[in-house]
Amino acid sequence: MLSEQDRMKKIVGEEAAAFVKDGMKVGLGSGSTVYWMIRKLGELVENGLKIEGIPSSTQTENWAHEFGVPLTDFSKVNKLDITIDGADEVDENLHMIKGGGAALFREKIIAQAAKELIIIVDASKMVTNLGKYPLPVEILPFAWERTANEISKLGCVPKLRKKDAEILISDNGNYILDCPFNVITDPTNLNEEIKRIVGVVETGLFIGMATRIIVGDGENINIVE
Amino acid sequence: MLSEQDRMKKIVGEEAAAFVKDGMKVGLGSGSTVYWMIRKLGELVENGLKIEGIPSSTQTENWAHEFGVPLTDFSKVNKLDITIDGADEVDENLHMIKGGGAALFREKIIAQAAKELIIIVDASKMVTNLGKYPLPVEILPFAWERTANEISKLGCVPKLRKKDAEILISDNGNYILDCPFNVITDPTNLNEEIKRIVGVVETGLFIGMATRIIVGDGENINIVE
Repeated sequence: MLSEQDRMKKIVGEEAAAFVKDGMKVGLGSGSTVYWMIRKLGELVENGLKIEGIPSSTQTENWAHEFGVPLTDFSKVNKLDITIDGADEVDENLHMIKGGGAALFREKIIAQAAKELIIIVDASKMVTNLGKYPLPVEILPFAWERTANEISKLGCVPKLRKKDAEILISDNGNYILDCPFNVITDPTNLNEEIKRIVGVVETGLFIGMATRIIVGDGENINIVE
Repeated sequence: MLSEQDRMKKIVGEEAAAFVKDGMKVGLGSGSTVYWMIRKLGELVENGLKIEGIPSSTQTENWAHEFGVPLTDFSKVNKLDITIDGADEVDENLHMIKGGGAALFREKIIAQAAKELIIIVDASKMVTNLGKYPLPVEILPFAWERTANEISKLGCVPKLRKKDAEILISDNGNYILDCPFNVITDPTNLNEEIKRIVGVVETGLFIGMATRIIVGDGENINIVE
């Protein structure tokens, strides 16, 4: 028996899978909502759908193997037809904060490579202003204290992400800083300011990338474009 | 018996070591000219000089151990008094191309952290315009082909650096692209354009960082400030 929240994730995940058509190259995001989407894609592939996916995390890669979704990579493919992913916050301009699952860099690559980027979320992720969710920033381990200090000058106290008391290591071998800005008034500018800092690999701000948001809200699904 | 070139490297390396004073925190660059500087620092430390260095590569770390130069790291130190490093090209504004030794990211961190950045080179590295030396850019391995393609749009054909037929891996676990721009007319702008690309970790353009260049030219040493 699924919880109310998981039921909602399943519904929007499966709804998103319907946008994937025969022959498409598909960017596969990360996280618990994407899980349901990949499971559905596995069913569709079993019934004859021909697609190839590029996963944004090792967890997603494992799910794709589990559900029989064929994979490819950027040595063979330069463009994707569609990418489907979750988000931690989405504002009214469809700018987003992502990276709660630490996969923000690969997620940004598959987002940027795609003609269409569909985001699947529950209604609690829709916000007026970004920033209540601490912004994840991927940084190199060397001199990470200096990099954190540079980011703090932009108005937050970054926190090094840990997991089970150990420093969390991203799929790229890097660290994640969680940066609580509280309210981000100019996400485009903040993204550029942070990315410019020596030591920063990528920020969790996704500016002007999403083309469609599928929002699960209680019994309803809303599509924002 | 040293070659003429190595003799020159030894002279400018030792000249630079004279700028290091008691109590200083010292950024230790990388490469064959820096080798002589570290060797000289080892002598000075043996004679009582009290310093701590932060190395920019595992090779430099090994040299510091070999010559007895005490080391520290950025968990204990936020600022450096002086950094001494080499360069692949230096222009008339003291902008530089670095990264021939694949240590550009850590070199940029120790350059940025230092009050004074002394660059030691032979006269052949002094140029009117940067760009004849292919610009090294450190990038994440994932989707590196896409990242290279984005950089190529800025006017070069990037080449993935290899070593003994294998892809070269930086000290940070990343790849290096060598980007032959031929002539870089606006290094400040190019640096920002490249760094902005998703997948780029850092560029080998060092803009407005050097405070003093020690140039070995035949029998002479010239200091450019």
